[in-house]
Amino acid sequence: MLPWKSIIQLQRQEGTPLYLQIVHTIIREVRNGHLTPGQKLPGTRYLADQLELNRKTVVLAYEELMAQDWIQILPSKGAFVADKLPVLTTAFFQNPYLQESRRSPGFSIPEIPALLGHHHPPPGLLKITDGSPDIRLAPMQSLYRHCRRIVEMGSGKKYLAYREVEGEGQLRNVLTTYLIATRGLNCTEEELLITRGSQMGLFLIFTLLLRSGGNVIVGETTYPVVEELVQYLGGKVLRVKVDQEGMVTEEVEALCAKHPITAIYLTPHHHYPTTVTLCAERRLRLLELSKRYRFAIVEDDYDYDYHYSSSPLLPLASLDNAGTVIYLGSFTKCIAPSVRIGYLIAPRKMIVALSNIRKIVDRQGDPVMERALSIMLSEGEVQAHIRKSVKIYRQRRDIFCQLLKKYFKDKIAFTKPSGGMAVWCTFQSDLPVDTFFTVAQKQGIWLEDARQWWSESRSMRLGFASLNEAEMEFGVKAMANILT
Amino acid sequence: MLPWKSIIQLQRQEGTPLYLQIVHTIIREVRNGHLTPGQKLPGTRYLADQLELNRKTVVLAYEELMAQDWIQILPSKGAFVADKLPVLTTAFFQNPYLQESRRSPGFSIPEIPALLGHHHPPPGLLKITDGSPDIRLAPMQSLYRHCRRIVEMGSGKKYLAYREVEGEGQLRNVLTTYLIATRGLNCTEEELLITRGSQMGLFLIFTLLLRSGGNVIVGETTYPVVEELVQYLGGKVLRVKVDQEGMVTEEVEALCAKHPITAIYLTPHHHYPTTVTLCAERRLRLLELSKRYRFAIVEDDYDYDYHYSSSPLLPLASLDNAGTVIYLGSFTKCIAPSVRIGYLIAPRKMIVALSNIRKIVDRQGDPVMERALSIMLSEGEVQAHIRKSVKIYRQRRDIFCQLLKKYFKDKIAFTKPSGGMAVWCTFQSDLPVDTFFTVAQKQGIWLEDARQWWSESRSMRLGFASLNEAEMEFGVKAMANILT
Repeated sequence: MLPWKSIIQLQRQEGTPLYLQIVHTIIREVRNGHLTPGQKLPGTRYLADQLELNRKTVVLAYEELMAQDWIQILPSKGAFVADKLPVLTTAFFQNPYLQESRRSPGFSIPEIPALLGHHHPPPGLLKITDGSPDIRLAPMQSLYRHCRRIVEMGSGKKYLAYREVEGEGQLRNVLTTYLIATRGLNCTEEELLITRGSQMGLFLIFTLLLRSGGNVIVGETTYPVVEELVQYLGGKVLRVKVDQEGMVTEEVEALCAKHPITAIYLTPHHHYPTTVTLCAERRLRLLELSKRYRFAIVEDDYDYDYHYSSSPLLPLASLDNAGTVIYLGSFTKCIAPSVRIGYLIAPRKMIVALSNIRKIVDRQGDPVMERALSIMLSEGEVQAHIRKSVKIYRQRRDIFCQLLKKYFKDKIAFTKPSGGMAVWCTFQSDLPVDTFFTVAQKQGIWLEDARQWWSESRSMRLGFASLNEAEMEFGVKAMANILT
Repeated sequence: MLPWKSIIQLQRQEGTPLYLQIVHTIIREVRNGHLTPGQKLPGTRYLADQLELNRKTVVLAYEELMAQDWIQILPSKGAFVADKLPVLTTAFFQNPYLQESRRSPGFSIPEIPALLGHHHPPPGLLKITDGSPDIRLAPMQSLYRHCRRIVEMGSGKKYLAYREVEGEGQLRNVLTTYLIATRGLNCTEEELLITRGSQMGLFLIFTLLLRSGGNVIVGETTYPVVEELVQYLGGKVLRVKVDQEGMVTEEVEALCAKHPITAIYLTPHHHYPTTVTLCAERRLRLLELSKRYRFAIVEDDYDYDYHYSSSPLLPLASLDNAGTVIYLGSFTKCIAPSVRIGYLIAPRKMIVALSNIRKIVDRQGDPVMERALSIMLSEGEVQAHIRKSVKIYRQRRDIFCQLLKKYFKDKIAFTKPSGGMAVWCTFQSDLPVDTFFTVAQKQGIWLEDARQWWSESRSMRLGFASLNEAEMEFGVKAMANILT
């Protein structure tokens, strides 16, 4: 009898189920010729004993191997390696398993220097984001209850098929009504495209508008992924100053006089990362300029729902009478980042072009989830969730600002934001960026995406919405320990 | 009292809930000045009476209006238009609601002539696809049960956050094991990227490889979206003959000798649309050529799981020892099109570049669904579903081929496919393409995506897998009525 215990080495900590590990090993042994066609395999009881497993696990593995034609099971005789193996040709046996050369590509890969890459936080650290919602509050059980009900109903089966590229009609319908009511937008559902979060909206817009290059105006501080995107797509980024009232429109005008401008990207409510609101006068000025110079205003309204003191300023899109504003929103902030549903509003001609591109990017969204979301919007569940979280986040903002003052005293400067999920802080500190982030990790906190502004201005965008009181205290204390 | 019944005109057939229609109308009336700040609104009982609604609906509408600060409710006095309206400036009131000029864009939109657009079938017709699964069989309840369990567990909350761009680690892990076991692929999970269906995989691959243009070889008949994609991205399509053994490799070699080739796109198992399998000899030949001329083989293995007579030929990727094959698969065919989870396997360097691009396209997939799918793969649920559907589809293929013979007699030529979800049929008919499709719709059937081959060769790819016996009989009979 072969030394099965050493042949099949199970990794009990791994994500792969044990029975599949057995399946995998036996296939490998057949492939590399250690087990040959017709060879008898051990009985399930014996193997289970050797591997210290429940016999059912081995039975399951053998059934899987049989289903895949790797083994035959003969009644009262046992299991045997199949005579006719499910392989291509004998050439297969010469194919070295996990061969080294496979690991380097046999064709050339173009360089794409503009992309920053991405990092994932190590587990176990308190994550201080740049402003994410608290996923513990998200109405996910309700969302999946709706999804399940939809697929259970006969009439819901249609949502499992290939569907409209532009998104589910019902969601577009309800969402249009919702946006008219909450944001004063003047749009019809034909002017609305459902996307995978606003990220896909931005990708589609710029991939179309920058097809032959072009200049895009952004703030001197801005959402970094947009700069990355514009440069990747061959566009040129032009920066303007941002002050306490948002982007400085005089600088925008000066640029328009000098260069042809394709688009301007902004988050008027609230500026990313500094959280200031673009004032009404400048909003009107930008609309005028876009009309005169015929550029698109890409208005990313990522946290319109979160305002704490007064009513929010309505989006630029609600005042657009020249067809120059493209409006973006999403449910990642008001429900959870995993719910990848966003939307954009633009003149119909633009929507048609964007959805033609979207078709070749990923064909369509998830119709079941889109339908579920439309039900939650109709029934007011999303609205109720937003009302509830606004209350909680307002309180968290107040506590967070108190904690910053308590622990940093005069070593910090910030303005309490009137909305949103983050505070823009400037610190008095000489610490170099790498030291700060390394020490922070040792203290148990992970600061997301904050490196970019530290070196220049010792500033950081600190998200409070995802943290409860204890977490805020822990996080602020840890940072204060390092910086003061 | 105002004529409320004529002011609030409810559309009872529409998707928008009645209470939101009331909300929407009242906001509109406030905006256009018909209702002024401080004005008293009718009582809920009276309004419900006028509109023939349940009073609760009106109460809900007023609550929503109050939540949005459009109205105030004073105890024992009633509802009033708010004194301070939630609007930007008085300029707002001059903004014509749904103004005409909004409908044409105020900036120029680049032309993208390569894109075909998309069509959605009218309701009520029997849809004969080019080969879709039967969504009625899909294990969706189980999928959403898993989703709900994940979000209910404390440990599952993490799946609601921003996660790895490359896809959930557990899915990549289980999927790697699964692909090694079922397809003989030699890959690690670092060589695997989760995508939104294989469509996004194709988009990412070609957007990278064709960054500075390039030639892509496809079959003279091929999946049309790929030609569209390559041309949209600025690449050039070169076509080679396809015969009964798949793409003719001599023609591929001749092209390689003449032009620099960036990539070849093929569906060796089975060729789209003709359903032939690429023979073993040509597979090895293509691998040799790709190694010699350093081009990428984009192997789209969209229906590997569906083979009926013998074991399938293993993918080219399982024989790749030069790092030239990029392998694509998805769960849209084996579960349902709405489950937008696909994957691609490529050398690690390529995966890194592709996931950097993916980050700016849509940031990430749906982590909850990816986790749920990984559980279904671990527990063998997906595998069991595939085994079950293979049995059903095999039977349907046989019945469908019998029906074609029965109704078309000698007016049709086809080869019974050894796998897949569709039959490639060539008809004896003089009917022009438009007449055929118009009449087909009148007869109650919708033929998907079939126009492209009709004019040239009177051929069509007819999907049988999604149809039960009665539907097949109805569809084939209707087509025969028109064509014979």
